[in-house]
Amino acid sequence: MGGEIRIKRNDLEKFCTDVFFKLGLSEAEAADSAEILVAADARGIASHGVGRLWRYENGLKKGIMAGGVQPETLRETPISLVLDARGAMGLSLSKVTMAKVIDKAETVGAAFASIRNSNHFGIAGYYTEMAARRDMIGICMTNTAALGVPTFGRHAMFGTNPIAVSVPALAGGMFTLDMATTCVTRGKIEVYDREGKTLPSGWAVDTKGKGTTDAHGLLEDMLFQRGGGLLPLGGEGEEFSGYKGYGLAVLVDIMTAVTSGGVFGRSVMDSEATSARVCHFFGAIRLDLFREPEELKSDMSRLLAELVNAEPAEGCERVYYAGLKEHEAEALSAKIGVPLSAKVAAQLRQIGQGLGIAFPG
Amino acid sequence: MGGEIRIKRNDLEKFCTDVFFKLGLSEAEAADSAEILVAADARGIASHGVGRLWRYENGLKKGIMAGGVQPETLRETPISLVLDARGAMGLSLSKVTMAKVIDKAETVGAAFASIRNSNHFGIAGYYTEMAARRDMIGICMTNTAALGVPTFGRHAMFGTNPIAVSVPALAGGMFTLDMATTCVTRGKIEVYDREGKTLPSGWAVDTKGKGTTDAHGLLEDMLFQRGGGLLPLGGEGEEFSGYKGYGLAVLVDIMTAVTSGGVFGRSVMDSEATSARVCHFFGAIRLDLFREPEELKSDMSRLLAELVNAEPAEGCERVYYAGLKEHEAEALSAKIGVPLSAKVAAQLRQIGQGLGIAFPG
Repeated sequence: MGGEIRIKRNDLEKFCTDVFFKLGLSEAEAADSAEILVAADARGIASHGVGRLWRYENGLKKGIMAGGVQPETLRETPISLVLDARGAMGLSLSKVTMAKVIDKAETVGAAFASIRNSNHFGIAGYYTEMAARRDMIGICMTNTAALGVPTFGRHAMFGTNPIAVSVPALAGGMFTLDMATTCVTRGKIEVYDREGKTLPSGWAVDTKGKGTTDAHGLLEDMLFQRGGGLLPLGGEGEEFSGYKGYGLAVLVDIMTAVTSGGVFGRSVMDSEATSARVCHFFGAIRLDLFREPEELKSDMSRLLAELVNAEPAEGCERVYYAGLKEHEAEALSAKIGVPLSAKVAAQLRQIGQGLGIAFPG
Repeated sequence: MGGEIRIKRNDLEKFCTDVFFKLGLSEAEAADSAEILVAADARGIASHGVGRLWRYENGLKKGIMAGGVQPETLRETPISLVLDARGAMGLSLSKVTMAKVIDKAETVGAAFASIRNSNHFGIAGYYTEMAARRDMIGICMTNTAALGVPTFGRHAMFGTNPIAVSVPALAGGMFTLDMATTCVTRGKIEVYDREGKTLPSGWAVDTKGKGTTDAHGLLEDMLFQRGGGLLPLGGEGEEFSGYKGYGLAVLVDIMTAVTSGGVFGRSVMDSEATSARVCHFFGAIRLDLFREPEELKSDMSRLLAELVNAEPAEGCERVYYAGLKEHEAEALSAKIGVPLSAKVAAQLRQIGQGLGIAFPG
């Protein structure tokens, strides 16, 4: 397994909860934040999991984010909620907010919320699945630090801006699409850089807005904001419809930041001194607005089964649908533990040592 | 201009209205259907404009679609509406339905509708802009005949399934994203075939699910349903994140067909004898659920201005945002007339002759 360990989900959650609590979060904030981070690792999305714990530690110690912050309600209707997070913990605030959206939808049929001045909230799919488990369509988006270059442009004007949607099927099954609207994320460029590999052309452009395959140069250009950056889903120019991914990324900025009066576009920046002050969007729409939930979910199961049973391409093993890989990974994690790289495990042990908390791995 | 003529928008609408009326639509259905078709040409989206009039003529003459059909209401709540179109005219029924969704949203804050057993409804962006002009976020999707192949698959399992969203800015400006979720549409493959050009790799796969650049072979394989088809936005396999476009296409099937109890996936088929019985989704969300509309629209204008003013890539003229090209084309059409290819103009003249209606061009 090349330096991978497995650790019981409960044990890892307990450890992260203790860390967050020690860093000043309330008990509820700490438990929620831990749960969401660990859910990412359990689903095989290590990029958004406990490997980021050191960033939260950093942010909490520097006061970029903080426990116990009371967000300001900017607007509230029976069907909507707009919050200024005021730097509250993005993970736990997002869970509490999605729960409120679900409660409102339970009463009115559908509901939406946007939040400004928040920070990294983990995997968007965590929140959409909260709604799906309550027989609703769940929707979630967040903007992120600007790294993406518009079609025909040369400067970063939007983030990797993910969109997630979950729709339940029968017997706990569900469709969960959770996708960055850029072709790839910075993390992937970093992996290529570390391995000294050339980027596929179509992932990124240089400071002149021309396609580049130089991972190291790109990372430096992005770091020093010289121009260049990641291409939207669909790649460079019009040939593969990159303007569609670009449009989706801007849509995320609109739904998260323009609806909440937050920061959008190139003004969204991470730095040592300040969080990106990112903005989120949450939505829940009850299935029974349309059909009897059991009937709708039965058709969902039929749709997903047709996709999974589709004949694979020559040389391919199987056809997936959105969320299937993650749900299979989560089931495996429940059996044999949540996977952690040896590097992340060592990092966690070190964080624990600094705070007097024993790492269970 | 290579055989392009310009014709006054009003004149073209009047001609199409007369044609539709003669073919059995009610006066209102005929006028609405004409307006939506012509809007596509006015915006430069000729693929969805009056060049399709012969298809509607065909469908109406064969009884695949019909005027004066009363759709069946399957479910209605203050916030939602689900219809069985029973083969009613997709264009006019969609306009009437979006108007109802907007009315409901005016009362409740947001509303949604889905329709099954409909037929081609023109440009999705027409309906979303109806909502945007009423200070709402407009949402629209439709499924279409299966032509798209899932990641790792070899058979068509979904349509080009477009998603459209409009959000208003100040002074009538707006963002309108209206995009097929496949990388390209069949129309584009047909153009390459006619011109004897090789397809860019990443647009389509053959019957074995392997990338193909043979436009003619692909069209034949699709026509005879031998396998192969269009790739989702993001292309083949995982390298350029084709599973994201695939996920979006499936999402459209869910929102349109699963919510309405309609036909989805590979079962959506066009043929001479039957319409595709496609399904639509409409949504409207009031801006003032989130902020004062003027403030929100002011930020929208600022966001769009930042994008338009972004420095272009070397060799590129300018950066666009979603909908800008179409709005500029529409403004030009208002001045000098709606553009029609000589071929389409001749087609219209012929349709008119058959029905005893003079073509104004």
